[in-house]
Amino acid sequence: MPNLPRKHLFDLPEGVIYLDGNSLGPLPRGVAERLESCARDEWGRMLIRGWNEAQWMDQPARVGNLIGRLIGAPEGSVVLGDTLSIKVYQVLASALEMRPDRKVILSDKGNFPTDLYMADGLIRSLGRGHELRTPAPENVADAITEEVAVVMLTQVDYRTGRMHDFEAITRKAHAVGAVMIWDLAHSAGAVPVDMTANGAEFAVGCTYKYLNGGPGAPAFIYVRPDIAETVRPALSGWLGHEAPFAFDLDYRPGRAVERMRVGTPPVLQMTALEEALKVWDGLTMDEVRARSVALSELFIREVEARCPELTLLSPRGPGARGSQVSFGFADSYAVVQALIARGVIGDFRAPDAMRFGFTPLYLDEGDVTRAAEILGEVMAERDWDTPAFKARGRVT
Amino acid sequence: MPNLPRKHLFDLPEGVIYLDGNSLGPLPRGVAERLESCARDEWGRMLIRGWNEAQWMDQPARVGNLIGRLIGAPEGSVVLGDTLSIKVYQVLASALEMRPDRKVILSDKGNFPTDLYMADGLIRSLGRGHELRTPAPENVADAITEEVAVVMLTQVDYRTGRMHDFEAITRKAHAVGAVMIWDLAHSAGAVPVDMTANGAEFAVGCTYKYLNGGPGAPAFIYVRPDIAETVRPALSGWLGHEAPFAFDLDYRPGRAVERMRVGTPPVLQMTALEEALKVWDGLTMDEVRARSVALSELFIREVEARCPELTLLSPRGPGARGSQVSFGFADSYAVVQALIARGVIGDFRAPDAMRFGFTPLYLDEGDVTRAAEILGEVMAERDWDTPAFKARGRVT
Repeated sequence: MPNLPRKHLFDLPEGVIYLDGNSLGPLPRGVAERLESCARDEWGRMLIRGWNEAQWMDQPARVGNLIGRLIGAPEGSVVLGDTLSIKVYQVLASALEMRPDRKVILSDKGNFPTDLYMADGLIRSLGRGHELRTPAPENVADAITEEVAVVMLTQVDYRTGRMHDFEAITRKAHAVGAVMIWDLAHSAGAVPVDMTANGAEFAVGCTYKYLNGGPGAPAFIYVRPDIAETVRPALSGWLGHEAPFAFDLDYRPGRAVERMRVGTPPVLQMTALEEALKVWDGLTMDEVRARSVALSELFIREVEARCPELTLLSPRGPGARGSQVSFGFADSYAVVQALIARGVIGDFRAPDAMRFGFTPLYLDEGDVTRAAEILGEVMAERDWDTPAFKARGRVT
Repeated sequence: MPNLPRKHLFDLPEGVIYLDGNSLGPLPRGVAERLESCARDEWGRMLIRGWNEAQWMDQPARVGNLIGRLIGAPEGSVVLGDTLSIKVYQVLASALEMRPDRKVILSDKGNFPTDLYMADGLIRSLGRGHELRTPAPENVADAITEEVAVVMLTQVDYRTGRMHDFEAITRKAHAVGAVMIWDLAHSAGAVPVDMTANGAEFAVGCTYKYLNGGPGAPAFIYVRPDIAETVRPALSGWLGHEAPFAFDLDYRPGRAVERMRVGTPPVLQMTALEEALKVWDGLTMDEVRARSVALSELFIREVEARCPELTLLSPRGPGARGSQVSFGFADSYAVVQALIARGVIGDFRAPDAMRFGFTPLYLDEGDVTRAAEILGEVMAERDWDTPAFKARGRVT
């Protein structure tokens, strides 16, 4: 089973095995130089003219097309901007307007909290008696009833890596007349997604995880093309206007998904992301997925052989699992700190999960085997059982 | 009258006189290198640990304090993030909740359109019969009545530079029981502002104009400290949560203005901004204002002596004018193109304004006199009256 020949495209520190690309992807080579040149040669030399000459204004749509390719979305259906929280708010507000007679938003307890917080805030702002239901992930399908206005789920659970049945959930949502929103935060660049085949109305996601866009990289938003021009954009900012530079006093939504743009795009972040996406040239998501499954399976096998104290929190079957593997242990926080001290970077998620992301663009079998060995050593030698590693600090 | 000794802190192109810092400030020296090192040494080397080790997580509040100093806001009352459009939405939604019995939002026709668009979108989402009133700027004070829930104004008019009476408007708003929101987009770094003395509940602004934060730099938001912990944040994202990394399912607003944070901060943009703000070390806004008035007065005098065809659109009295000067002319668009071709960069705002921003950090009397001479040549030689300069392209 060959490794993907992409590791040389990343600038990884010596002596580090990075299993946290599911939280923040590493620096692709060329991005630091591109950022410097964006500042020096575009901002510095072109000044205000950069909006046209360096095509900053078109960047949110141009980068949207690069991401569209990775999630099975057609040209012109994805645009970049803001943060995932903001994009969740936009799609949820738009979706609720499409079902004014229904009051239930269905999500799950495995969703990333900000999605739930944004929904809660929207419900309170609207003040129209909407209700947010959050069953356990495995009970979502049964909870999709004709009361439901919108089903809003993150495809891959951030704690466990558990994957929802992408096709079946959308089918069921549509069968009862609900609008479907997928959060692809842990999917884009990790698992094959075909938005066109899926048929969901909306998708959102972030670009600093498997897409390696850098800390605080902008979010993406997809609207199904056949409805894009009927959707009323919540957060109707000037760059979602049909003619932003007419400076009309009245808002008229722009064409297709571009109406979901809000304010001035973060050019420096967008440029880092655009450069970072070059590592995907010529790759298919099926290749990436095949390697990610192989690496995840290898890790589980090697860890379970060495660390009987750890409980697999992720689904055992690779088809039900995204590109991460989580183990449970009472002192997971301290274990993660001890691993980092030995050069293996994973992360901790409350209350007791250690998470490891597998991103075959820059990880190979040697890395994965070595990481499992080191985890075995940390557990065998009780590295983690020291006050320094057990101190609770802020964990990101 | 001495020039401010700051020009050497900017990396301006040879042969350019830049009078568009009111739209996009130029590149301060050191920012391109700082960006490159943020990518290479922080993101690249620290990876996920950058959130703590490089203090990315605290950056929105840390940079908020730097900006707070320039707008008379105390420590801990300003935070950075998102775009100005998003921040307008947040303060307006919060303000409306503070006056549930009133239905009128008062702004003016001189406000930047995105502020009006965001208000319009919020009104439509709420569906509770709010009304947006937009009188002419000079009629705003008279329109502040007891029907008004919120007065939301941009202090300096983006087209004309006309300044509202900052103190009197806030006093009148408070006298009738309305909440006051100031948009400081064209004020921060341009005119002295004292939020504490003013007493307005909220202020927002952007950082890519007079604060030179770079294209797409994040916005700032100020909440008056005595009410900050009673304000319910609209757009309740995880980084505004009291304990983001507890990953609770329920939202609890964070302390003070930090509750107005939403999603993951744009670290690369924040870092460029933080570095760019170093040019303000040791300067007071009163010094900057005195120089900006002197330069603006000089420009008006020199242009009016040379260009009788142009009409001053800005207030003549410097006390009623921000840090920009606008002239009206039927073919302003073409004149601006012709000026750019001769190295003087101003900009055009529909329908007929040419705008010139005066930012004494990097402009001196020689620049201003030379710019007026070139404008005189463009008008005298009818440079602008050519098809190339008259063609309408996108203007930013």
